[in-house]
Amino acid sequence: MSRYRIFKVADAIAYAREAAGLASDLPLRGEEIGDGNLNQVFRVWSPGEPHGVIVKQALPYIRCIGESWPLTRDRARIEAQILLRHGEACPEYTVAVLHHDPALSAMLLEDLSDHRVWRQALLDDQLFPEAAAQLGRYLARVHYHSSAFYLDYQAQRAVSTRFVNPELMAITEAVFFVDPFRDHERNNVEPLIRAEAEQLWADDALKVKVAALKHDFRCKGEALLHGDLHTGSVMVAAGTLKVIDAEFGGYGPIGFDLGVIFANLLLNVCSQPGRHPAVIGQRYQQQRIEEIRALWQSFRADFIALAAGSADPALAEAGYAQAFMRRVWRDALGYAGCEMVRRTIGIAHVADLDGIEDPVRRVACQRQALSLGRTLVMEAEQLDDTAFNLLLVQQIIAG
Amino acid sequence: MSRYRIFKVADAIAYAREAAGLASDLPLRGEEIGDGNLNQVFRVWSPGEPHGVIVKQALPYIRCIGESWPLTRDRARIEAQILLRHGEACPEYTVAVLHHDPALSAMLLEDLSDHRVWRQALLDDQLFPEAAAQLGRYLARVHYHSSAFYLDYQAQRAVSTRFVNPELMAITEAVFFVDPFRDHERNNVEPLIRAEAEQLWADDALKVKVAALKHDFRCKGEALLHGDLHTGSVMVAAGTLKVIDAEFGGYGPIGFDLGVIFANLLLNVCSQPGRHPAVIGQRYQQQRIEEIRALWQSFRADFIALAAGSADPALAEAGYAQAFMRRVWRDALGYAGCEMVRRTIGIAHVADLDGIEDPVRRVACQRQALSLGRTLVMEAEQLDDTAFNLLLVQQIIAG
Repeated sequence: MSRYRIFKVADAIAYAREAAGLASDLPLRGEEIGDGNLNQVFRVWSPGEPHGVIVKQALPYIRCIGESWPLTRDRARIEAQILLRHGEACPEYTVAVLHHDPALSAMLLEDLSDHRVWRQALLDDQLFPEAAAQLGRYLARVHYHSSAFYLDYQAQRAVSTRFVNPELMAITEAVFFVDPFRDHERNNVEPLIRAEAEQLWADDALKVKVAALKHDFRCKGEALLHGDLHTGSVMVAAGTLKVIDAEFGGYGPIGFDLGVIFANLLLNVCSQPGRHPAVIGQRYQQQRIEEIRALWQSFRADFIALAAGSADPALAEAGYAQAFMRRVWRDALGYAGCEMVRRTIGIAHVADLDGIEDPVRRVACQRQALSLGRTLVMEAEQLDDTAFNLLLVQQIIAG
Repeated sequence: MSRYRIFKVADAIAYAREAAGLASDLPLRGEEIGDGNLNQVFRVWSPGEPHGVIVKQALPYIRCIGESWPLTRDRARIEAQILLRHGEACPEYTVAVLHHDPALSAMLLEDLSDHRVWRQALLDDQLFPEAAAQLGRYLARVHYHSSAFYLDYQAQRAVSTRFVNPELMAITEAVFFVDPFRDHERNNVEPLIRAEAEQLWADDALKVKVAALKHDFRCKGEALLHGDLHTGSVMVAAGTLKVIDAEFGGYGPIGFDLGVIFANLLLNVCSQPGRHPAVIGQRYQQQRIEEIRALWQSFRADFIALAAGSADPALAEAGYAQAFMRRVWRDALGYAGCEMVRRTIGIAHVADLDGIEDPVRRVACQRQALSLGRTLVMEAEQLDDTAFNLLLVQQIIAG
């Protein structure tokens, strides 16, 4: 591991040159473009060429916090392997890993400069009408191909053991399920919403539900998850998308990834009254709700179609995949509720809400997000998709 | 691995002498006492001494079938490690592993000659009034100490990875969840009950439920299971018991072990009309039902008491352990239903039913077992413990 050094631009260029096998005299330029919480990201390109490459490197600590929170660099190796595996299942929508170097905790990725971060596109009110259905297809493929429907006992155990990701999944356990539901120093609670947060922290029935979701996150190893599928992990372009940033991946419940992306679309929904006059905001809210519907429908249809080819005689039983989808839906709503809460009062917020400048409007949106998050956790078992849509209309659009 | 040889009595004596550190001139005798399906078991003792030792050795195939079904000898290493781990959590009720030798696929176990196999005791109508509650306590301890309540993310992943047992758990998947629910050559169906078996194989709603139970068995790694906790894996004596034979162990849903032992007590219940006049048989049926109640109550009380000390801030939430127990109960009923079916028409039967000599009475009992098994799978979600007891009274005792 002695080759490791924290890259500066010149190091990123040198790594890219070697890893991509570029001529030693080809002129290359680079810049740091990372906006995430954990890593360094460089773009390296040759002047005049439309496409460059991306160099992503893990630091031995959490970038946005600093050296006081050390974190295994091994996450870069795990992420590269997850992206490669997901890329086998769904090359169309998974960022391509061109090279990875465990000793340097670095990887070379395809350049997605012609894509936008989906969250940013949504904040600019830019519609990508196919993105949701594509993301559903991506999830169906990556989940199916690591699930018990596709892998026999021994193969699945071999894969799940290989992708054990203890340090980062332990962080998810803490910042997703534990901190936001109690008064914890890692939380980030706006003073104006503290009363609502305290109400949540005193809500014992809610915390029992969250405990069950956390327990399942730990124990229910259904598929190799992305693990952090918010709208900032999705790059969109006309007619296509690419999923990036899989360092939180590992085996877990299939509903988790769905719940996280549902929640991030719903957080955008909740942010609309803070960002637009009602009549305009409602149109964007409808778009997001339609995206959730499209995402779920494409996920469900594709997963069921794939499951029909399962070699497992029990799981291939007619009707089981449909029954399983009902369970996944309920799980997804529960996880969506947790994500909405934790992105509002936990350590890591979203620009959709925090970017609302007027504090009174911002807090009103946060309040909406907390309330919807709580409802989703509490009522996940009861809400079929019709009831879910009704809830959204009642709680948000009409509310 | 070249030291491996299939033990004869003299080899077992030599291994016991060396592993137990006995003097080279101490006279020792040995005999093969194995009655299981998989392994060789020897008792080795010194004439005049009340206690000997047990030598258990895995063969490279399934003993009851022969060399045509090869099976990893590594199961002996896994079993020894599971028994040692369970022994740390519950030394009182886990057979003591005195030594194990992975190369010989052999282990030295405490001699339980003063105990009886519980199944045999039940067939002799011998009551061990404390056995059920003790077994509940054993399950609470071994499950709790390998669960998310006790182990943090990294510790639990380390343990669950260490105890991956792919070959034997794949056998459970096949013979427990797959074969008995379809016409498979491995099944063993009495001709007189073939019509009922065929009805079951055509029951699509049942097979969808079984698929969900199988899926959870694969994916829901809640605790380090025993994996085959029938009444033949429990040795009883006055005031105590010891659990043996953990080669099918690995991570799985906590309800699985409970379901298997419930089912084996229920199979005994179903066998009573074939073995006794009604008025006597009903007394034994009541005993078994009381044992199931006592087992569940002691498991539940002990698990909840242990969970109160959980260091996990979410899972320690007041009321969560109780909510979790409701889920475990439902899982247990589902697995109990599968076990009843597979022990009646699958590859491995139980003496409780097969030992009934009169074929008409035997088949009537088998029919009862199949019917109750099906009901448990279908209604597991709805049956609380009151409804469960009512069901038993209606379906069996009054029926």
